[in-house]
Amino acid sequence: MTISVAVSGASGYAGGEVLRLLAGHPDVTIGAITAHSNAGSRLGELQPHLHGLASRILEDTTVENLAGHDVVFLALPHGASAEIAAQLPAGTVVIDAGADHRLADPAAWEKFYGSPHAGTWPYGLPELPGQREALKGATRIAVPGCYPTSALLALAPGFAANLLELDDVVIISASGTSGAGKAAKVNLIGSEVMGSMSPYGVGGGHRHTPEIEQGLSGVAGGQVSVSFTPTLAPMSRGILTTATAKVKAGVTAEDLRQAWADAYDDEPFVHLLPEGQWPATKSVVGSNHAALQLAYDPHANRVIVTCVIDNLTKGTAGGAIQSMNIALGLPEAAGLNLQGVAP
Amino acid sequence: MTISVAVSGASGYAGGEVLRLLAGHPDVTIGAITAHSNAGSRLGELQPHLHGLASRILEDTTVENLAGHDVVFLALPHGASAEIAAQLPAGTVVIDAGADHRLADPAAWEKFYGSPHAGTWPYGLPELPGQREALKGATRIAVPGCYPTSALLALAPGFAANLLELDDVVIISASGTSGAGKAAKVNLIGSEVMGSMSPYGVGGGHRHTPEIEQGLSGVAGGQVSVSFTPTLAPMSRGILTTATAKVKAGVTAEDLRQAWADAYDDEPFVHLLPEGQWPATKSVVGSNHAALQLAYDPHANRVIVTCVIDNLTKGTAGGAIQSMNIALGLPEAAGLNLQGVAP
Amino acid sequence: MTISVAVSGASGYAGGEVLRLLAGHPDVTIGAITAHSNAGSRLGELQPHLHGLASRILEDTTVENLAGHDVVFLALPHGASAEIAAQLPAGTVVIDAGADHRLADPAAWEKFYGSPHAGTWPYGLPELPGQREALKGATRIAVPGCYPTSALLALAPGFAANLLELDDVVIISASGTSGAGKAAKVNLIGSEVMGSMSPYGVGGGHRHTPEIEQGLSGVAGGQVSVSFTPTLAPMSRGILTTATAKVKAGVTAEDLRQAWADAYDDEPFVHLLPEGQWPATKSVVGSNHAALQLAYDPHANRVIVTCVIDNLTKGTAGGAIQSMNIALGLPEAAGLNLQGVAP
Amino acid sequence: MTISVAVSGASGYAGGEVLRLLAGHPDVTIGAITAHSNAGSRLGELQPHLHGLASRILEDTTVENLAGHDVVFLALPHGASAEIAAQLPAGTVVIDAGADHRLADPAAWEKFYGSPHAGTWPYGLPELPGQREALKGATRIAVPGCYPTSALLALAPGFAANLLELDDVVIISASGTSGAGKAAKVNLIGSEVMGSMSPYGVGGGHRHTPEIEQGLSGVAGGQVSVSFTPTLAPMSRGILTTATAKVKAGVTAEDLRQAWADAYDDEPFVHLLPEGQWPATKSVVGSNHAALQLAYDPHANRVIVTCVIDNLTKGTAGGAIQSMNIALGLPEAAGLNLQGVAP
Repeated sequence: MTISVAVSGASGYAGGEVLRLLAGHPDVTIGAITAHSNAGSRLGELQPHLHGLASRILEDTTVENLAGHDVVFLALPHGASAEIAAQLPAGTVVIDAGADHRLADPAAWEKFYGSPHAGTWPYGLPELPGQREALKGATRIAVPGCYPTSALLALAPGFAANLLELDDVVIISASGTSGAGKAAKVNLIGSEVMGSMSPYGVGGGHRHTPEIEQGLSGVAGGQVSVSFTPTLAPMSRGILTTATAKVKAGVTAEDLRQAWADAYDDEPFVHLLPEGQWPATKSVVGSNHAALQLAYDPHANRVIVTCVIDNLTKGTAGGAIQSMNIALGLPEAAGLNLQGVAP
Repeated sequence: MTISVAVSGASGYAGGEVLRLLAGHPDVTIGAITAHSNAGSRLGELQPHLHGLASRILEDTTVENLAGHDVVFLALPHGASAEIAAQLPAGTVVIDAGADHRLADPAAWEKFYGSPHAGTWPYGLPELPGQREALKGATRIAVPGCYPTSALLALAPGFAANLLELDDVVIISASGTSGAGKAAKVNLIGSEVMGSMSPYGVGGGHRHTPEIEQGLSGVAGGQVSVSFTPTLAPMSRGILTTATAKVKAGVTAEDLRQAWADAYDDEPFVHLLPEGQWPATKSVVGSNHAALQLAYDPHANRVIVTCVIDNLTKGTAGGAIQSMNIALGLPEAAGLNLQGVAP
Repeated sequence: MTISVAVSGASGYAGGEVLRLLAGHPDVTIGAITAHSNAGSRLGELQPHLHGLASRILEDTTVENLAGHDVVFLALPHGASAEIAAQLPAGTVVIDAGADHRLADPAAWEKFYGSPHAGTWPYGLPELPGQREALKGATRIAVPGCYPTSALLALAPGFAANLLELDDVVIISASGTSGAGKAAKVNLIGSEVMGSMSPYGVGGGHRHTPEIEQGLSGVAGGQVSVSFTPTLAPMSRGILTTATAKVKAGVTAEDLRQAWADAYDDEPFVHLLPEGQWPATKSVVGSNHAALQLAYDPHANRVIVTCVIDNLTKGTAGGAIQSMNIALGLPEAAGLNLQGVAP
Repeated sequence: MTISVAVSGASGYAGGEVLRLLAGHPDVTIGAITAHSNAGSRLGELQPHLHGLASRILEDTTVENLAGHDVVFLALPHGASAEIAAQLPAGTVVIDAGADHRLADPAAWEKFYGSPHAGTWPYGLPELPGQREALKGATRIAVPGCYPTSALLALAPGFAANLLELDDVVIISASGTSGAGKAAKVNLIGSEVMGSMSPYGVGGGHRHTPEIEQGLSGVAGGQVSVSFTPTLAPMSRGILTTATAKVKAGVTAEDLRQAWADAYDDEPFVHLLPEGQWPATKSVVGSNHAALQLAYDPHANRVIVTCVIDNLTKGTAGGAIQSMNIALGLPEAAGLNLQGVAP
């Protein structure tokens, strides 16, 4: 079986990463590759690392150019994907790497994104309890945000096993700059970001906060309250999330370790490292893998979980393709059999 | 008045930074420069950035070579400084950049450092309430650790003003690699650390945890409990500390901002940034300055404070010289009139 | 057909990269994975990015453990590979990523490496004229050095087409730090290399100089003289080589462009970029691709060719596997269908 | 004596660096600080590392605001400085960090810059033979380009001593990204430049080529021909220039070393390192120092000289202030007594 796929937003980082992975997917033929202002350009000019697709010409991002494929990836600015998705055939598998279809609560959507709510699609994080089943046969998939991917992988096992207090979660993440997109902004130029770390969106203002709370609450079966602070790190790719929660009375270090091991021992892409080994973002760069480690601090009565992913791969394009594979009944790891690129 | 100064540990990063700053200090003459295995070498070979001192020859780190100066800086491995300090004249100002004389609690010292407790010296963080007075005339000064410097600057105003709960502090710091010293270790080589972030000492195991708790508890007038996680960032210098605590009932965002403003408005080196501006480590690199910003998150009922310092300057050598200036009655900023080096 | 492969030196960067690529090779089964001091360790501990092989245990690097495979990769220190290779069966395909079997001239070998000459093997750079044929059916292959790979790809077309003077070649390369290996040396730690560029081996002293001259002379049909200067750049992977030679009288810019286009238009991994587009190392990182661009400077009467490769992939492990594929009659790109990992 | 100084272009990197250094200059009072689109802003918002000047408000860059100071620094785009300079009083010391007044040859100016030639001013590189004298009492000074500063320091001694062939100079430089300015361009964002090296302006097209040739020809007393290739390196600051020229018949390695030693032994800011020690850009970052090393390659009959500077300090703002000091009869190192900031 060969599946025809269209990719929009191909001149950006998310679109480029979708193409990088699809170029190695054994069951896929890459059809239309579309962009907005860069339509008409050679892909090799905009994404010079995609040597195998260098001579492809970018088409306009229109419903006409995207329709007629089995699968359509939308890697578009927030708000733009909902409009296009609404016009694609119901039978087409539409995978939205943007935020438009992630949040179930219209009020949260409007508070953080400011535009009308477009509805909710199945959430493309198959490692959440029950979520793999929910993706089978899906024709609309919302790809999780990069920070939520790392935060939910970090803490979901503890909430699923009822080991953590719901009202005191603190999450601090460091992200590579590609998370901010391929945007010509002075604060993102190399001279500013190399050798520097800085916070942003502090105080609960980052748009991924309600998405993290939604995911954890769904697992916990109750409202989880999160303090989330993102920071920008001097690297192109990768997220290191440090997540910590108060532990319920009577829970032991062994209980905690067991819960995470149970959650991930059979997962192909999420790895609880052997005790004593801490994850580094470099170990997952370029791959769909996530690596975790946790520690119980009895003094503060907190569990601290660290989780690393590549924000563009497991955090965006890899998670999208993993979800596509599940939706279509393909092997879950098809096209994703890539190790990290280190050093 | 010209003060003669000796610097030990001159081949390492802390010793090198002390020398970099002293070379521009108007009231100081640099006497003996000492090292251990590198004694006999030309300083320009080991610290090629110290052009003004390049031809100086390193002497052995002995009591004989250090004695006879007005001030002695000890930038030695933990444990080594206590032994030498004990043999220096009582009237000599001895400034220990190591950990040996920071902790008041012998049990905490032994738990985290494993050697006999050497006693406690005045703590070289003049921005803590009452601490500037305590340093005047001191002849023994313990330079704070780099993480504690940033963590205490971040949270002390809130505890001093009685605005924060004592039992739920979470601190996560990202440090440049120079904090790990000039050590030939595979995990520190550039190929491993560039493009990567990783945690270490998770779960309360880092030696700076008791020092942070000691400092905050002293300010709060009660036992503060801290969950502290350090991470390694792909940059040479700088610490970004994100510190968060639960806010007491009835405290407003204005109360919080006022407390930090009151604490730092007259400080020469610690700056609460205007609202809306977030600190970046690059803005303080090479300087003795610290920059802070805070936000109140009503949803999580937490204050989040971010603080940036240069771990080698304000976090070590700059703090040491600032304390020396206070101890000797010199202008507090003598030799420290340096802006950050950016971009 | 499934080919069994053994990999020695698996705890280093070259061995790790061979394993990363072999893990995605469709025709290969990875047999013994060996190391020296790390024998007995879990691979996941030493190469945490190789998630698919994490549970494999490293064996000792002995002839016994390596023999019995169809192919053996040697990623060992200079001198060590010759000794082991000599004891492996003649029918085994032995691929030496070290320098032992690259140089034809025993005097050059001894001058630059200081040990007895071990003989010369077919040179694993199939893009050199005639070299692809020479590799078919080979059972001993010498993998080129990383700098020579980039330098030969840069200049061979001009010498093959008789357009360049032989006696005035200047080559200056910037390499990522992984080229210096996974070695615990102070001058390689991140604090030293981040934010810094430095030269080394200046004045003709680098071991790759005779290898570059050997390769270019073979193509030119006469003795080519090269001034080669390597520099260390603050990045983990990648080489940018800038190579320049005097142009023979009467040669035009069009002649030059045509020669390079003719040489590489049919090559799967070497790409002359469209005019006006300059190569960046990031566009090839993680891939077996090389990208080139050239310009003719009439004022200086020189052609300047810039070439980028990933030193660990095309410059070592990728080139090795490409050569293995040719030797065994497999599709040349098997296991190498990877795009660059950017941004 | 206190000299009043105005600085234009204060929101850019060159202007920011001039201010950083002037803030520590003992003989200077900083008057007007001006900008174009950022006029009216607080300096601390645009240059957050300049803590000592954070509350200063940027004025408009007009003749009115700049006039009335003893010294005016112009850190403006090419073309803009000539227009303003022409309207400033003849007695004011005007120091142009832009290119407008560097080139003596109107044809070269128009070819590379495309605008009318504005005339030539004394060239602010006092280490060139005779140039220190030429700067004394000057009221108009053209600050050299950053690449020419490094290239001229690298090769001038050899041409001054008549040891080098004039017609075969090859120079390849790697620059930090701040050399490209504080510009919102996609090719300069951190995600693109981190972990990557790339060439630009290849083939003689870079604007600094005629300036390098002008400087070397002036020293050599004959027309020097240069092939110059700049490359962009993943660091914020610093230039590593590798310059090589054919050596005249009969010249020995000792002759070469002696020429460079004679040229620089008495210079306060330019250092020929001891034999065997190679320069790293990090050793000069933040300082006005340059470090050099050279080697003679008898095989290629070339001298290879490597020179490191900080492009913003010795390469721009530091060189400008050094020249100002000479022009005004101040101590040459006033305000420049800064070591490199390493690691």
